[in-house]
Parts: sequence; C-alpha cells; structure tokens
Amino acid sequence: MGIADDAVEIRAQGWRTLAALHGLIDTALERALQAEHGLSVVEYTVLDALSRQDGWHMRMQQLGRATALSPSATTRLVNRLEDRALLTRVLCQDDRRGIYTELTQAGEKLLLAARPTHDRALHEALQEAEQVPELAVLVGTLGGVSAGV
Amino acid sequence: MGIADDAVEIRAQGWRTLAALHGLIDTALERALQAEHGLSVVEYTVLDALSRQDGWHMRMQQLGRATALSPSATTRLVNRLEDRALLTRVLCQDDRRGIYTELTQAGEKLLLAARPTHDRALHEALQEAEQVPELAVLVGTLGGVSAGV
Repeated sequence: MGIADDAVEIRAQGWRTLAALHGLIDTALERALQAEHGLSVVEYTVLDALSRQDGWHMRMQQLGRATALSPSATTRLVNRLEDRALLTRVLCQDDRRGIYTELTQAGEKLLLAARPTHDRALHEALQEAEQVPELAVLVGTLGGVSAGV
Repeated sequence: MGIADDAVEIRAQGWRTLAALHGLIDTALERALQAEHGLSVVEYTVLDALSRQDGWHMRMQQLGRATALSPSATTRLVNRLEDRALLTRVLCQDDRRGIYTELTQAGEKLLLAARPTHDRALHEALQEAEQVPELAVLVGTLGGVSAGV
C-alpha cells in the first residue's frame, strides 16, 4: 500500500470513528430529550443556537449551517417549532430577503428546562464512549478541540 | 462561571463541533453516493463494514454498532440490501440465535465501484471543513485519531 493509499485509509478510518461517536452521542441525546421534553436533538440544537446569538435572532441560512440541514428541511423544522410557539420569524428591515428567527419566552423556558437533561446525557454518553477503545482517543480530543477555537 | 460549568460548556462546544463536522461530511457523501451509485451513506457503511470482516460475515448486532442504528432499523436496512441482492443472511451453525450477514458478489462489485466516489467526496469535504475556523482543529485531529487506534 503506497503513501497515497495510506492517506485515503487514514481519512476513511477517521471518518468511521467520527460517525460512530456521533451516532452514540446522538442516540443518547435523542432518547433523553424526547423522553423528558418532547424535543428531538435537532430541535434542541435550533433552540440552543438561537439562545446563543446576540440579540436572540438568527438567519434561516445560519440555522441551516448549525443543524447541517438543507434549506427546505430547515424551513420545515422552523415551521414545526413556530407551530409549537417556541420561536417566531421576523422579516429583516434592512434586507428584504433576510428572514430572522428568534426564541419566544416559551422557547426560552423549554430550552432552560432541557439543557440540564442534554448536558447530563452528553456527559454520560462521553463516559460510555471512553470505554470503547476505537472511540476513546477522539473523545479525549473533544475538550482540546473546543479549547482551540 | 465555575470549573464545573466550564467543563459542561467545553463538552457542549465539543459536541456542537463534532455534530457540525459530521453533518458537513455526511451531506457531501450522501449526495455523491446517491447520485453515482444509488447508495445512502448508511448503506455504504454496511457494505464497507461487511467487506472488512474476516470471513466476510458479521452479526446483526455488530452491524448495528457500526451504523449506530437501533436493532429494528438495522433489520430494515439489511432487508432492503438483501432485496437488492447486495448481501445475504446466514444462520450461524454454532449459535442458533446468531444471524450473520455477508456480501454477495454483486454487493462486493457495487462497493468496489462506490469506494473511489466515497473517498474522493470525503477528501473534498475535509478540505472544505478545513476552511471553516470552528471545524479546522477537529479535522486536524482525525488523522491522529486513526493513527492512535
């Protein structure tokens, strides 16, 4: 196997590790958030992203990046959360194309209730992942990752 | 903010970074594999995992771990791939509870055709992710992750 093949295999192995760790955490968060708050992981991600923005609003496009969803899937997700009165949409004054979303008081309240559940499930999922030899190294880098940015 | 709160926030930030990188790669692979080979990422993952097993067979439970799917979702996925004649199921001789799956020749052929597409799309997605400041550090650790295991 040549150097180029090695690089391809290293990338593929890195991706398999990333996907496996993502799956383990995502499954654990989904179970906890659905059971205790009727929220999916991606719905929690939207509420959390909105809450961390200056001025508490965000463009649809930015939300799409935060959730890794397509524009149409982002629109459907925002519609569902709007129907539940957890966020509202605002047309931007300066830019007629821009649609902003912001948390309602109910959205903020649900997020505050769900955050400890999310953080506890995440902590437990990472502890579980540390026991899996293939995942342990990547778990260890996550702290460093966030410290580095 | 205390040390305990810092740890919680570092974990949450690490998970957001991981989820964003996973989403970027997953979207790119899904687009390329569907367009060129009619395969989803998770279907490719199953064929790839089967091909890398000794003796070319794998328990359903192991497949579930590789794909991060629930037992019922794993069964549905294996059924779909069996209907397309890409894998077969074998009842284990030694263990009556164990059902093994293995690639067919057609499955092996499709995997060999799809692998360059997968590897190219992965390479391009990682190059794209390296341009995003929040993701660059994690992209950089993936090589080290696989080297460490």
